[in-house]
Amino acid sequence: MKTNFKNFMSLALDEAKLSAIRGEVPVGAIIVNSQDNMVIARSGNKVEELKDPTAHAEILVIREATRLLGTRIQSCDLYVTLEPCSMCASAASLARIRRLYYGAYDIKSGGVDHGARIFNHSNCHHKPEVYGGIKEETSRQLLKKFFANRR
Amino acid sequence: MKTNFKNFMSLALDEAKLSAIRGEVPVGAIIVNSQDNMVIARSGNKVEELKDPTAHAEILVIREATRLLGTRIQSCDLYVTLEPCSMCASAASLARIRRLYYGAYDIKSGGVDHGARIFNHSNCHHKPEVYGGIKEETSRQLLKKFFANRR
Repeated sequence: MKTNFKNFMSLALDEAKLSAIRGEVPVGAIIVNSQDNMVIARSGNKVEELKDPTAHAEILVIREATRLLGTRIQSCDLYVTLEPCSMCASAASLARIRRLYYGAYDIKSGGVDHGARIFNHSNCHHKPEVYGGIKEETSRQLLKKFFANRR
Repeated sequence: MKTNFKNFMSLALDEAKLSAIRGEVPVGAIIVNSQDNMVIARSGNKVEELKDPTAHAEILVIREATRLLGTRIQSCDLYVTLEPCSMCASAASLARIRRLYYGAYDIKSGGVDHGARIFNHSNCHHKPEVYGGIKEETSRQLLKKFFANRR
């Protein structure tokens, strides 16, 4: 299991790197069906490409996975390279995601372990298991380099 | 102005009624460009139709409006018949919505004046002006009737 979750985060990091190449903030996500370890959906951030402020990597993979499997994907795990914002954390809850693995912590815009702390409210109807800090440093460096280059 | 915002909420209620006819939870939303009072986007909830847990009315109109006008629509107002959940409130913030007018309060799943109270955190980078309870009773009755018929 230990190997698996790091391998899956590497796939999400690949998506983040592709985002950077496309000029998007480098965040990547994948969804894995825990029953057979199959990667159901993968995407990077596409906010600029789609002119859509909701087109975060997490939303795109959740939409793809639910299109395939139905609106509740309780056997699925979400891997994302950055702590989800409150929009994405809420979407993961609505989709009944089983586990959330994320990379870098995000003090500025995170909504899981910072800010709105989406899963910590009594009217949050589903709380995934959360594992933060997976391959944190790789993700953080990728973001740092991207923003340094834009300045 | 007083007339305007009630008229716009009536259009959002029409979308909610159409949602109910399609077998979806009756919530409707519209986006109005405040510069010319033009209705930019309108939609009801399409979670079942699209097999997409993120396809709340608010998300669909935000995506449509930003597709047309770019990712930041700071001249636009969002009208929705029910208090937005935390996902939709966060999306409204990301899209830089100017004002949020909503209908019924939602103790169970609302994320503006209940639960995560999305706009009340220091890492929420844009807080729309919020006006709740517009044509509240009409919206509430619509939802009540829908859920009563499903039982």
